[in-house]
Amino acid sequence: MSSADETLDRIKAQVEEETPDDIEIDSVAFEGPELVIYTPDAQTVANRDGIVRNLAQTLRKRINVRPTQEALVPPNEARARITQTIPEDAGVQNLDFDRQTGEVFIEAEKPGRVIGRHGATLDDISASVGWTPEVVRTPPMESSTVSNVRNYLKQEREERRDILQRVGRQINRPTTSDEDWVRLTTLGCCREVGRAAFILSTPESRILIDCGDKPGAEGEVPYLQAPEALAAGPNSLDAVVLTHAHLDHSALIPILFKYGYDGPIYTTAPTRDLMGLLQLDYLDVASKEGRTPPYESQQVRDALKHTIPLEFGNVTDIAPDIKLTMHNAGHILGSAVCHFHIGEGRYNVAFSGDIHYKDTRLLDGAVNDFPRVETLVLESTYGGKNDYQTDQSDSERVLRDVINEAYENDGKILIPAFAVGRSQELMLVLEEAMRKGDIPTMPVYLDGMIREATAIHTAYPEYLRDDLRQRILYEDENPFLAEQFEQVDGGDEMRQDIADDEPAIILTTSGMVTGGPVMSWLRLLGSDPDSTMAFVGYQAEGTLGRQIQRGQNEITLGDTSGPRAERVSLRLNVETVDGFSGHADRQGLESFVETMHPRPEKILCVHGDASTTNQLSSALYQKFNMRTHNPKNLETFRLS
Amino acid sequence: MSSADETLDRIKAQVEEETPDDIEIDSVAFEGPELVIYTPDAQTVANRDGIVRNLAQTLRKRINVRPTQEALVPPNEARARITQTIPEDAGVQNLDFDRQTGEVFIEAEKPGRVIGRHGATLDDISASVGWTPEVVRTPPMESSTVSNVRNYLKQEREERRDILQRVGRQINRPTTSDEDWVRLTTLGCCREVGRAAFILSTPESRILIDCGDKPGAEGEVPYLQAPEALAAGPNSLDAVVLTHAHLDHSALIPILFKYGYDGPIYTTAPTRDLMGLLQLDYLDVASKEGRTPPYESQQVRDALKHTIPLEFGNVTDIAPDIKLTMHNAGHILGSAVCHFHIGEGRYNVAFSGDIHYKDTRLLDGAVNDFPRVETLVLESTYGGKNDYQTDQSDSERVLRDVINEAYENDGKILIPAFAVGRSQELMLVLEEAMRKGDIPTMPVYLDGMIREATAIHTAYPEYLRDDLRQRILYEDENPFLAEQFEQVDGGDEMRQDIADDEPAIILTTSGMVTGGPVMSWLRLLGSDPDSTMAFVGYQAEGTLGRQIQRGQNEITLGDTSGPRAERVSLRLNVETVDGFSGHADRQGLESFVETMHPRPEKILCVHGDASTTNQLSSALYQKFNMRTHNPKNLETFRLS
Repeated sequence: MSSADETLDRIKAQVEEETPDDIEIDSVAFEGPELVIYTPDAQTVANRDGIVRNLAQTLRKRINVRPTQEALVPPNEARARITQTIPEDAGVQNLDFDRQTGEVFIEAEKPGRVIGRHGATLDDISASVGWTPEVVRTPPMESSTVSNVRNYLKQEREERRDILQRVGRQINRPTTSDEDWVRLTTLGCCREVGRAAFILSTPESRILIDCGDKPGAEGEVPYLQAPEALAAGPNSLDAVVLTHAHLDHSALIPILFKYGYDGPIYTTAPTRDLMGLLQLDYLDVASKEGRTPPYESQQVRDALKHTIPLEFGNVTDIAPDIKLTMHNAGHILGSAVCHFHIGEGRYNVAFSGDIHYKDTRLLDGAVNDFPRVETLVLESTYGGKNDYQTDQSDSERVLRDVINEAYENDGKILIPAFAVGRSQELMLVLEEAMRKGDIPTMPVYLDGMIREATAIHTAYPEYLRDDLRQRILYEDENPFLAEQFEQVDGGDEMRQDIADDEPAIILTTSGMVTGGPVMSWLRLLGSDPDSTMAFVGYQAEGTLGRQIQRGQNEITLGDTSGPRAERVSLRLNVETVDGFSGHADRQGLESFVETMHPRPEKILCVHGDASTTNQLSSALYQKFNMRTHNPKNLETFRLS
Repeated sequence: MSSADETLDRIKAQVEEETPDDIEIDSVAFEGPELVIYTPDAQTVANRDGIVRNLAQTLRKRINVRPTQEALVPPNEARARITQTIPEDAGVQNLDFDRQTGEVFIEAEKPGRVIGRHGATLDDISASVGWTPEVVRTPPMESSTVSNVRNYLKQEREERRDILQRVGRQINRPTTSDEDWVRLTTLGCCREVGRAAFILSTPESRILIDCGDKPGAEGEVPYLQAPEALAAGPNSLDAVVLTHAHLDHSALIPILFKYGYDGPIYTTAPTRDLMGLLQLDYLDVASKEGRTPPYESQQVRDALKHTIPLEFGNVTDIAPDIKLTMHNAGHILGSAVCHFHIGEGRYNVAFSGDIHYKDTRLLDGAVNDFPRVETLVLESTYGGKNDYQTDQSDSERVLRDVINEAYENDGKILIPAFAVGRSQELMLVLEEAMRKGDIPTMPVYLDGMIREATAIHTAYPEYLRDDLRQRILYEDENPFLAEQFEQVDGGDEMRQDIADDEPAIILTTSGMVTGGPVMSWLRLLGSDPDSTMAFVGYQAEGTLGRQIQRGQNEITLGDTSGPRAERVSLRLNVETVDGFSGHADRQGLESFVETMHPRPEKILCVHGDASTTNQLSSALYQKFNMRTHNPKNLETFRLS
């Protein structure tokens, strides 16, 4: 008998002892970080107060109670009963029965109507059919990413269960070492922006946090071959934890599966979907630019299949001695500050990922309140001593002025923007400004992945800011569905029509003008002195966006050195509107630390260039009298 | 054809081009760090100025020119000719012909007489027999260690050549990485004294520096299982470098061979012999104390077999991108400051090992002059803010007073001392004091390994201080052979006789009264109020030495808790004489850094307890405005 089996036997006995005598326990199993309890009395357990909570506290595990097979009404009969129970206006799209787990997934346009007051409708369903209802929202905007991911995971349900069981056994394996240390290794994004990757290790466990690329420097990937990382083989990792979906944090995760990794990825559900979208685009861009992508789309699917989605605030075992809790980071949809609790109260370390400290229109500001934290690994993108950004209200006023002026000139406003995050923030700004009459209502064309990324946002409204969520969920006032937003889905012909038509705003990728549809727009509008190009995001050194921003007035499009190269004289107005960054500025980073509870003993300043991390590290040391570092890549810190 | 073969072909062509046309080159081969050139004209090459030097400079390798087989006079004939050539008073003990290398090892009591004026006699031998003469000193004191090591290496000559060739190919392998970093990992002796061990690594190479035990804490061995160390297998190490023979630096080296390591150990010849002596004693002590030793004597022999002895100042390739140079450290015989030059001028790091900055009677002070050095890893044993020691001249006066007083009382002077280092220093002090009449001439009994360790010193006089070397080599005034020194080789019976006899000095191990013959002496002299016990070395917390030093007047000998336990009331005088340490004190460490050339950019303070390394680190930072650290174990620093 394996030690995992012995552990399960012991836990089953404990569960039986802790539950009332009238409840029969059929079996218990590990599934990922959860303990699953199978019982013919699942309904009773669910309805009787405190049983699950008590078990979770006693066993210190996340508990999932499932009905045994014999408690389930056959699917056809169940389908009929469920359809009768749920009100018509819930807009049920699909019912999907998973016999292995006894779950029925109910996809509906209005999940609230499926759930009912205080969950009454769900309780009715459960009592009537024995199946455990799980409600899934039909995205208010159709998202091919969300539906592809859902279909793929459904199709791979069997293998996914195997993965979860294997992960569960790994997490619950007995600990073996009598040593006692915590180490943190930097594999990237130190004294640079890009290729975020860290190893957190103990004598028992090894966790990889993020695994990104470095934009503009394709060869510079994280130091995965370091002895602390994959040198002992890809499966010496217990888990991968992803803070958020941006490629400088997520791009190289699929390569782990190419190397043979078959363990879990922990992240939020929206990050999982955005990650899939961006990784596939990453492959697409690489292939269009004639580079050999470092992995194939199969590995993107492998990554999705191995992802265990976590909700903010849920404490989750991810290794025998490590618990992970994710908290809102305010940076983009699903972005998380990742808090690791090691041992029984031994040590706590938080990774900020990328953060925005203040609330934005889209998201609440980053969480900085933890039960305990000794070390903080803090992003420093805008940590330089002069990196103070304009207030968003001022920025919005500037943007409105730019738009009004272009409108008066009968021109177009071309805004290159990142598909995920900045675009949605701008959509909210534009929708409000038009609604309030601060700018004229005119078409806002979305080009590139922006619409798809926006649709993913609407599929996860619970991750958005309170008032925005309310508008999306209950009031049918979804700002992203405002009628002026229109997808560019007719190629260059449609773009030509738009260019020839009335004044309009064009939101398009790529955000740094390094490729994508923005290039077509430059061809169409570049020589139009009535139009305006407005930069709202960071333009990195070496990008075409930076060159235009600096005043270059002749650019080359297409195959820049070949016969199809096309020279365009820029005559449109070029404006830069500061203050829409998804990152905390210097003040925000200091405030995050100043108000952090508890104040950490040590801060590692990462994800910023050498002078920036150095300046932030010095400033935090001087202001808050804590130990601060600005590590290099490939260093290992002994935290405890 | 392997890449090593290709490299050799290329080198052979280069050698042919660089040598005059009348010299035929038969073949070239790698042997350890050397390039061996076989030629029928070895004699011509040796005699013609500049050929070897020119080759060494052009090829940037250490060159060893050997005769081809056909150039060798048959051994019997050669033996006769050599014996005729060397003057009788050279005291030749043995001739040993190694046909593979064309070397003849001439062991003689007076190597200078074998060598002749400016090497004239050696030249005659070489011209007459074709063999290359190598002169080996017959130790002035017979040392079983030295002769055992020599015999063992002779016996294993064939395998040793295989090892050297393999090592040579490893060193000369083509480099493969386009990365560029230098990392230093601490595996022990950080914020503690004991278990010295470091990993120096580059994308190409991985070097282990020291591998010691922690006295008084047998379980606390270096973190060899760290991913940066042996996790990728024992042969992921290119080389082991040993600073000196003390067990807290060398004890665990043989375990590497148990794990499967079969690469080289670089250290000085005397360290190799002392290491063998101390490791075998380490096994002996473990077995006597009923512990299971972590390896067996076979692994001690493996370590000897894999040792490549280096001379001070010789720059040696030990990996494709790392050159090692050892310099006198002044701590014990053969102890070295180890300087690593990485890449072509990329980075330099020096490991102090244990150092004594000032000259002692036995050794010159530590070298602190290097071509370049960016990082210094500095021992801190006496780096605490109050760790100032008495001047040795004052210490010696105190010791003389203690001896004179005991002598006047008709008592014995019992001095526990470490076998290697402190004992020899004391012998020199006592010999001089008696010769000058500062203390009465009386017997000085050497008990335990002291005599053997002293004999090893006399086998390597070139490592001793100038004037001492002169006395040993040319003047037949070897102080260690003074007639008052007498070995205790008659067990407890002899000890009883000594105790009953006239006043005498007894130098005995162990230095911290943790076992060994000093225990018998306590039994014999402990209750004698006329005798004196004089401590001259550091007594660690938890040792019996420390308890006695602190005034404990009743001790238990033998099996301390068993029926054979023997309680002894101490009535002898207990004195502590400071200032004989083999370590630089706080002043010495500061002077080492202050006068170091060039001044390093960064210092890591190690090999001292937490407060000591912290104090030294702060002081060096404040005084010399350099970056200083006091690392923990299991940290990795990115040096470059």
